Amino acid sequence: MKIVIVGAVAGGASAAARARRLDEDAEIILIERGTEPSFANCGLPYYVGGEIESRSKLLVAPAAMLRQRHRLDVRTRHEVVGIDRDARSVSVKNLGTGETYCESYDRLILSTGAAPFRPPIPGIEGAHVLELRDLCDADRMHDLVTTQCSRRAVIVGAGFIGVEVAENLIRRGLDVTLVELGGQILSPWDMEMVRPLEDHLREKGVKLQLNDSAIEFASCPQNENNLIVKLDSGRTLPACFAVVCIGVRPVNKLAVDAGLEIGSRGGIITNEHMQTNDPNIYAVGDVAEVSDFVTGEPTQIPLAGPANRQGRIAADHICGRSSKYRGTQGTSVVGVFGQTAAMTGQNEKQLRRSGHAFRKIYIHPKDHAGYFPGATQMTLKLLFDSVDGRILGAQAVGTNGVDKRIDVISMAIQAGMSVYDLEEVELCYAPQFGSAKDPVNMAGFVASGVLRGDHPVVHMGDELTISESNESELLDVRSEQEFARGHLPNARNIPLEVLRENLAELPRDRRIVVYCHVGLRGYMATRLLQQHKFDVTNLSGGFRLVQNSGQLKEKS
Amino acid sequence: MKIVIVGAVAGGASAAARARRLDEDAEIILIERGTEPSFANCGLPYYVGGEIESRSKLLVAPAAMLRQRHRLDVRTRHEVVGIDRDARSVSVKNLGTGETYCESYDRLILSTGAAPFRPPIPGIEGAHVLELRDLCDADRMHDLVTTQCSRRAVIVGAGFIGVEVAENLIRRGLDVTLVELGGQILSPWDMEMVRPLEDHLREKGVKLQLNDSAIEFASCPQNENNLIVKLDSGRTLPACFAVVCIGVRPVNKLAVDAGLEIGSRGGIITNEHMQTNDPNIYAVGDVAEVSDFVTGEPTQIPLAGPANRQGRIAADHICGRSSKYRGTQGTSVVGVFGQTAAMTGQNEKQLRRSGHAFRKIYIHPKDHAGYFPGATQMTLKLLFDSVDGRILGAQAVGTNGVDKRIDVISMAIQAGMSVYDLEEVELCYAPQFGSAKDPVNMAGFVASGVLRGDHPVVHMGDELTISESNESELLDVRSEQEFARGHLPNARNIPLEVLRENLAELPRDRRIVVYCHVGLRGYMATRLLQQHKFDVTNLSGGFRLVQNSGQLKEKS
Ligand SMILES: Cc1cc2nc3c(=O)[nH]c(=O)nc-3n(C[C@H](O)[C@H](O)[C@H](O)COP(=O)(O)OP(=O)(O)OC[C@H]3O[C@@H](n4cnc5c(N)ncnc54)[C@H](O)[C@@H]3O)c2cc1C
Ligand SMILES: Cc1cc2nc3c(=O)[nH]c(=O)nc-3n(C[C@H](O)[C@H](O)[C@H](O)COP(=O)(O)OP(=O)(O)OC[C@H]3O[C@@H](n4cnc5c(N)ncnc54)[C@H](O)[C@@H]3O)c2cc1C
Ligand SMILES: CC(C)(COP(=O)(O)OP(=O)(O)OC[C@H]1O[C@@H](n2cnc3c(N)ncnc32)[C@H](O)[C@@H]1OP(=O)(O)O)[C@@H](O)C(=O)NCCC(=O)NCCS
Ligand SMILES: CC(C)(COP(=O)(O)OP(=O)(O)OC[C@H]1O[C@@H](n2cnc3c(N)ncnc32)[C@H](O)[C@@H]1OP(=O)(O)O)[C@@H](O)C(=O)NCCC(=O)NCCS
Repeated sequence: MKIVIVGAVAGGASAAARARRLDEDAEIILIERGTEPSFANCGLPYYVGGEIESRSKLLVAPAAMLRQRHRLDVRTRHEVVGIDRDARSVSVKNLGTGETYCESYDRLILSTGAAPFRPPIPGIEGAHVLELRDLCDADRMHDLVTTQCSRRAVIVGAGFIGVEVAENLIRRGLDVTLVELGGQILSPWDMEMVRPLEDHLREKGVKLQLNDSAIEFASCPQNENNLIVKLDSGRTLPACFAVVCIGVRPVNKLAVDAGLEIGSRGGIITNEHMQTNDPNIYAVGDVAEVSDFVTGEPTQIPLAGPANRQGRIAADHICGRSSKYRGTQGTSVVGVFGQTAAMTGQNEKQLRRSGHAFRKIYIHPKDHAGYFPGATQMTLKLLFDSVDGRILGAQAVGTNGVDKRIDVISMAIQAGMSVYDLEEVELCYAPQFGSAKDPVNMAGFVASGVLRGDHPVVHMGDELTISESNESELLDVRSEQEFARGHLPNARNIPLEVLRENLAELPRDRRIVVYCHVGLRGYMATRLLQQHKFDVTNLSGGFRLVQNSGQLKEKS
Repeated sequence: MKIVIVGAVAGGASAAARARRLDEDAEIILIERGTEPSFANCGLPYYVGGEIESRSKLLVAPAAMLRQRHRLDVRTRHEVVGIDRDARSVSVKNLGTGETYCESYDRLILSTGAAPFRPPIPGIEGAHVLELRDLCDADRMHDLVTTQCSRRAVIVGAGFIGVEVAENLIRRGLDVTLVELGGQILSPWDMEMVRPLEDHLREKGVKLQLNDSAIEFASCPQNENNLIVKLDSGRTLPACFAVVCIGVRPVNKLAVDAGLEIGSRGGIITNEHMQTNDPNIYAVGDVAEVSDFVTGEPTQIPLAGPANRQGRIAADHICGRSSKYRGTQGTSVVGVFGQTAAMTGQNEKQLRRSGHAFRKIYIHPKDHAGYFPGATQMTLKLLFDSVDGRILGAQAVGTNGVDKRIDVISMAIQAGMSVYDLEEVELCYAPQFGSAKDPVNMAGFVASGVLRGDHPVVHMGDELTISESNESELLDVRSEQEFARGHLPNARNIPLEVLRENLAELPRDRRIVVYCHVGLRGYMATRLLQQHKFDVTNLSGGFRLVQNSGQLKEKS
């Protein structure tokens, strides 16, 4: 068996190593056009920022190791330039010598990854407009912020790479502007979830420019800021360099040229064994189109974990195993100056687009018992099927314990669990680690209460808006002090503790919308009023969520 | 509906609060013999140690709050002294006045908890022999270590409470001896997993005395150390006070006297709705016997999460809901001077006792990508069914990320997943949070490899012992430097990197046991040799596990 693999990083190197373990006799050729195989793409921003000090740390499995341990024929600085499917061969260009040769294969694995999208903006090809994908890009940026002492940078695109680059350039003391076309950073999350992170970025010194985009990169050689980034809004930003991080596109040229089937987003279409429509050719990682674990629809989610696992599955199948890829869930996490955002499954925007009948809840639990020092609050959003309660997605933002809760809910999604299952799960509890009712249980309680009809909720911005909220009676059940510090327009205040004594004051002719700070007391009040036959509903996520999501401009 | 609840902490208060939410009209009486309801039992050691500074933090839901928010009739310093099942009433003693009265019920919930076991050791009733269960105990110990400046303490029992107390007394500067009858601390974990924690305790100054027990507490009034603790080994330990933490027993007297069915370990037998054999009486929390989630057998596991959820389920059932308790998994976690031990499901000792055909694997992954600063190594043990790979239990010990992995595997157990499912799960990955192949995936890979026969393993101490290991050829595939620093007796060293060139040196007439530091290179070597038709097996967990488990006394 002769296996040729194109691309020697996450998907490709994983496939090669696994294939060797399964087949000691196979000839395995790993072709990589870059200088190094198996490097830590995900570490690049932190090397630029200096958090990872030594470049050699980024070389997870150096070529020598791959050769010695796994007896892989590693060819760096070699590029595959064409596939002859009938002949079962690839043409390979040695980038050192310029010479091109032909290499036959029994099975071919394409793990060519995805490349940063570079729209045709004037000046984007200029020397000071960077991207961050490989070691070479990282070396360049590292040099600019260390040796060349660049002081000012503009980052275009506030996805997770853009945000990571922003943090790391701030760490190097640069003046950083982050420009984003959309109305929010980190588009895989929903807007209200990341609003607080936008404030956090600003507090840390990032100049965040939402709803704007770069329309030109003009060079300005006489100035130390040798670039002028012109924005759609008319603003112009001087900078030493710009970084374009507006998403990636599958590196599919080889596949397109070879006539492999390509999906609507440019990914190579694969079956559950990662085979393309040519059974001798597999595609894995960012270049492959896979199915979404939750919806079953084709999707394209560039993440390292899926790339690694897909590579392993392709190798399995080539070596005669029946391993199957189950689809990508999109479980991901990003650190933002000590804050964390994590998510799994579908987000609300996707669910709305697809028309799936879903419901959602928000809670704001502490990462561990409130009575133990150091507890921090997170916001957790759960999206679930409005009929059977199956969990469709979750997002969390906070300081600690955020990745843990999303990992747990990711397992629940893998297992096809519903919100009713979350009520019953049994998680680690000691006061420094969690709560007797873990945030995940709590999310299950609240969501189940909503589905069972015990807990009618409204969402500000959806069924309710700040301005029209006076059609309902708006009842704030927080303490008088909390009410005095800020409340919704037209709300009246009856603290939960004295609500039972004041029922006579409440209207029976219209709906009462109850709220508190996070939703908990609002829920207690809702239960109480519901049983006293009021038409009542709880404001989901409470006053805090309204504040977080930026809907309440000034406190009233 | 009139609901009387005995015990107003984890299970009782949860039941009361939930019952009120479901039934605004119910009369709910919460009877507690202590001074406060709803306190944080689990925080008591940290209050003693000063980590939780303010006592009021321990009062999670003060009586006034329970009265106002939930309109509960909270009666502290009242003790239920008898149940008349025919009359459906309890006799209650007001501990303030001494008077006893009768209270009728429609439904009764017993959440009386479990009390520290106090065997009849001479002197155990003395004033300086403490236990730690409630606020009163904590106040006492707090006073001894602050106001009274006690300098020396002996803790009997190294379960999780004993270990937490040890840490907290060291924090107060005391000289602490921890005496444990068994051969290991933290008996819910397996011995090899907690050995490193025993060393860690010793490093932090705890004098750990395993395989020993207290046989007398003699008072010694003339000395500032007013107690002499005599041990079975003959040692005598002077101390200002002793703390007995050798497990708990269900507080079942009320139930026994009332003729409720009691299990073999003293717990009140309950059905899945937490009902006792008297359908008007429920038992929840530490006093109830429940079923083990994994085995389905009756069990008794005193943990706060289960107590809270059971209370909620009992309230549900009383209010006409059909909620069911699924059994207790035993998911738990304990902090030990900055180290963490967590576990879920069955341990190996239990599986051996029950004769369940299981297999096990060990891995030593980093909590996050090794190339990102601050990664720490953990040991993760996975126990699974030897036929279908269903996950039966897991244990992890390390610095960071330990609770996360056990929570994730706890979900897998809840979902009835197998090790093959763990290969495919998709968890959060960015370099500061995890790895592209998360430790949980890795555990799935290794365990699946074992089950599929790709990865034959032996366990030192089970199929192999240090002394008899020379029956097999022992092959160390680590580097020469690692080998020089210490290796197994009679091992020969051929580094993995040059193994293929040295196959001729290896015997074909007997089994080769390969090992490396953690098992990874050993596995690579095993795959290689297996395919070259050697009879080969990998030493599970590698040299590190042999060292950790204390089997290798001196390095050879
Ligand atoms: C800065 C950055 C940060 C990231 N952070 C995270 C993170 O925190 N978490 C996460 O899950 N994911 C992260 N990712 C994404 C993750 O790295 C990718 O999803 C993953 O590497 C995809 O693996 P792959 O094998 O498909 O492609 P890659 O790892 O990109 O490898 C593709 C390789 O193929 C080579 N190649 C392409 N064409 C040819 C050819 N014709 N001939 C020879 N070689 C070729 C390329 O040179 C490249 O080295 C990050 C990515 C970047 C760039
Ligand atoms: C020091 C300590 C640390 C702990 N740490 C953890 C941890 O980290 N994680 C974890 O999961 N668990 C921990 N636990 C265990 C956890 O606290 C218990 O599992 C849980 O509290 C059990 O709840 P329960 O309602 O059954 O009993 P309890 O919470 O103990 O409540 C029982 C109450 O009933 C009252 N009572 C008993 N009999 C009567 C009567 N006849 N009349 C009136 N009142 C009565 C008692 O006074 C007591 O207050 C810890 C326990 C202790 C003591
Ligand atoms: C490192 C790399 C070459 C893959 O190598 P790999 O050998 O598949 O992966 P690992 O070294 O993690 O080893 C995993 C194997 O070791 C086994 N293993 C892991 N720990 C073990 C242990 N303690 N004992 C025994 N076996 C173990 C696993 O079972 C698995 O083998 P399998 O797939 O045959 O079941 C590839 O992942 C890579 O290039 N990574 C860097 C690039 C990258 O991923 N970038 C994106 C993220 S920054
Ligand atoms: C606090 C205590 C009285 C229980 O009170 P509780 O009201 O059941 O629990 P919580 O305050 O956590 O609230 C949970 C409820 O609020 C709801 N809720 C939580 N967050 C919410 C939010 N953001 N929005 C709306 N509802 C929310 C949940 O759905 C749940 O209600 P449900 O059970 O009707 O579904 C009891 O747990 C206790 O005494 N604890 C301390 C003792 C103890 O547990 N010791 C051992 C551990 S140290």
